[in-house]
Amino acid sequence: MKKGHQVTMKEIAKKLGVSVSTVSRALKDSPELHPDTKKRIVEMAKSMNYQYNLLAQSLRISKSKVLGVIVPELTSHFFSSNISGIQDTAYKRGYNIMICQSNENYDQEKANIKTLVSSQVDGLLISLSRETKNYDHLRELYDREIPFIMFDRVTEEIPVSKVTVDDAHGAYLAVHHLLEQGCRKIAYISGPEDLYISKKRKEGYLDALKEYGIPESESKVYITDLTTEMNRKVTLDMLEDKERPDAIFAMIDPLAIDILMVLKEKGVKIPEDIALAGFTNNPTSAVIEPSLTTVSQPGYEMGQIAANHLLDQLDDLVSDEPQSFVLHTTLIPRNSSKKIKTK
Amino acid sequence: MKKGHQVTMKEIAKKLGVSVSTVSRALKDSPELHPDTKKRIVEMAKSMNYQYNLLAQSLRISKSKVLGVIVPELTSHFFSSNISGIQDTAYKRGYNIMICQSNENYDQEKANIKTLVSSQVDGLLISLSRETKNYDHLRELYDREIPFIMFDRVTEEIPVSKVTVDDAHGAYLAVHHLLEQGCRKIAYISGPEDLYISKKRKEGYLDALKEYGIPESESKVYITDLTTEMNRKVTLDMLEDKERPDAIFAMIDPLAIDILMVLKEKGVKIPEDIALAGFTNNPTSAVIEPSLTTVSQPGYEMGQIAANHLLDQLDDLVSDEPQSFVLHTTLIPRNSSKKIKTK
Repeated sequence: MKKGHQVTMKEIAKKLGVSVSTVSRALKDSPELHPDTKKRIVEMAKSMNYQYNLLAQSLRISKSKVLGVIVPELTSHFFSSNISGIQDTAYKRGYNIMICQSNENYDQEKANIKTLVSSQVDGLLISLSRETKNYDHLRELYDREIPFIMFDRVTEEIPVSKVTVDDAHGAYLAVHHLLEQGCRKIAYISGPEDLYISKKRKEGYLDALKEYGIPESESKVYITDLTTEMNRKVTLDMLEDKERPDAIFAMIDPLAIDILMVLKEKGVKIPEDIALAGFTNNPTSAVIEPSLTTVSQPGYEMGQIAANHLLDQLDDLVSDEPQSFVLHTTLIPRNSSKKIKTK
Repeated sequence: MKKGHQVTMKEIAKKLGVSVSTVSRALKDSPELHPDTKKRIVEMAKSMNYQYNLLAQSLRISKSKVLGVIVPELTSHFFSSNISGIQDTAYKRGYNIMICQSNENYDQEKANIKTLVSSQVDGLLISLSRETKNYDHLRELYDREIPFIMFDRVTEEIPVSKVTVDDAHGAYLAVHHLLEQGCRKIAYISGPEDLYISKKRKEGYLDALKEYGIPESESKVYITDLTTEMNRKVTLDMLEDKERPDAIFAMIDPLAIDILMVLKEKGVKIPEDIALAGFTNNPTSAVIEPSLTTVSQPGYEMGQIAANHLLDQLDDLVSDEPQSFVLHTTLIPRNSSKKIKTK
């Protein structure tokens, strides 16, 4: 699709040390800018052989009033909360949304972008699939100056705005809580190691251990592919280990629930024998027995912030300069870990 | 939008007593038809002043290879299963899907249809919002000959294909099971009475009672708006009633789970004091304590059947005549109702 390199507004902005929105305004001949600035930018654009991107222009001008959203999966409570936040915000501002799911599949993600761009959405909100390691499809979007931002599953390689939660701190809160309850042999059961959240939550896990003087060499990390089958197998293997842990921090709630079921089946008392904490705050976690200690992620608020920021960019209310929004997580202590009373 | 009545292929088909797809083929000058049939249809179309619908034509000819899906809500496990079935099927046949949710809101549903049609999807799969009582937006789609089918939340007023589950029979299975366990004072806790599933599941409830010689006058129906607050209130009120039931059939699993939590809080033994059954087979139902007896709806299969049928229609592999697919439900007995062993 690429026919030689097309100069972008971003490159002009970089060359002159001004913001992209200043370049954009200059090229639109906005009266807000000083004539000298405008002249300087227009001349630079000419000298760089800048061609005003017709597609991006038509996207910006003939607004469809629709945003496209791409999420890895819709069965996840977290992503459906994101979507609710995005939709409510978009609706209030006169926009509708169309959603595609990648099913954690890279090719599907590329197809989704193509589908939504062909549908002439005004902008995109994207959360990456697990499989996505190559970002050329995002680079192409960026080069074509199609407005988009990323949320939750993001990559640092593309300079657009990002909305994430403070994963490492959330994990730290959960593990710190387990330590406060008197646990010292705390295992971390993690998803695939190359996942962003696997790494970030491991960071928080290790930070909390360190604070209590437990070195990384004494940490216990188990890996699962997050299927129920493998989650159960890892838990059973862990119970066979010579040094059985006295607490488990599970990377996500669905994994924590699989672990909880195995522990109950094996007659392991929760939290007396093994305390347990998850991360996500799924609806099931509150009603299971014992109720699951977890870390709440503000999924709905993430969606609101992401949609408002993208719409602010589209309406030129904020600059196009990439922003990073990092939302806080909250510990929700429940019966699966509260040991203090019984000591 | 309507400028006088436009004659449709359906009307021509009705007039001649042939199928819509025969009319469609005749107007496309298909070689499969007998020249006499073709002539008869073309003449009738002319005499009725039929105007070949340009939008529908462009939709049919310049295929976007995208289907639009509208569901009431994405947080529901059932609807996200439908979507997975639709997406996997569409993907296998070279199509992508774009999804909109109505949030159970009629205006949002209308906006979604407009958005997806403007995006030139090849066809639509629609599940109605709770609020939808007026079907003009669907009638307009039908009149414009934009291909669509309905699933789960359907209306009989629009003659398009429909995919539903056998709600009444599923409810019958659950209540019949409670009766088999020896329960005789069985309450039905229902959502809003005007909902299609409220009515259908009540039918099944009454059928089962009747089979055991319990007249409708002895049935006990409680109504909730399905919010957790109201679900809890209705359950508490029911426990105060003079004639406390010995079993409860809850219209959907999330309601059953709210009821279960109240019963546990109040020290009511499940199933010894009150047996409980739900309907949906949500993931939580299997892991809650006691595990919840429920009726499984084949959500994924529904999505597969709906997508395959719509794509078959688009590819002229089946006629456009409306079909009704009714899928079976299955009882999943679990600990919340199994009393036989203890008797």
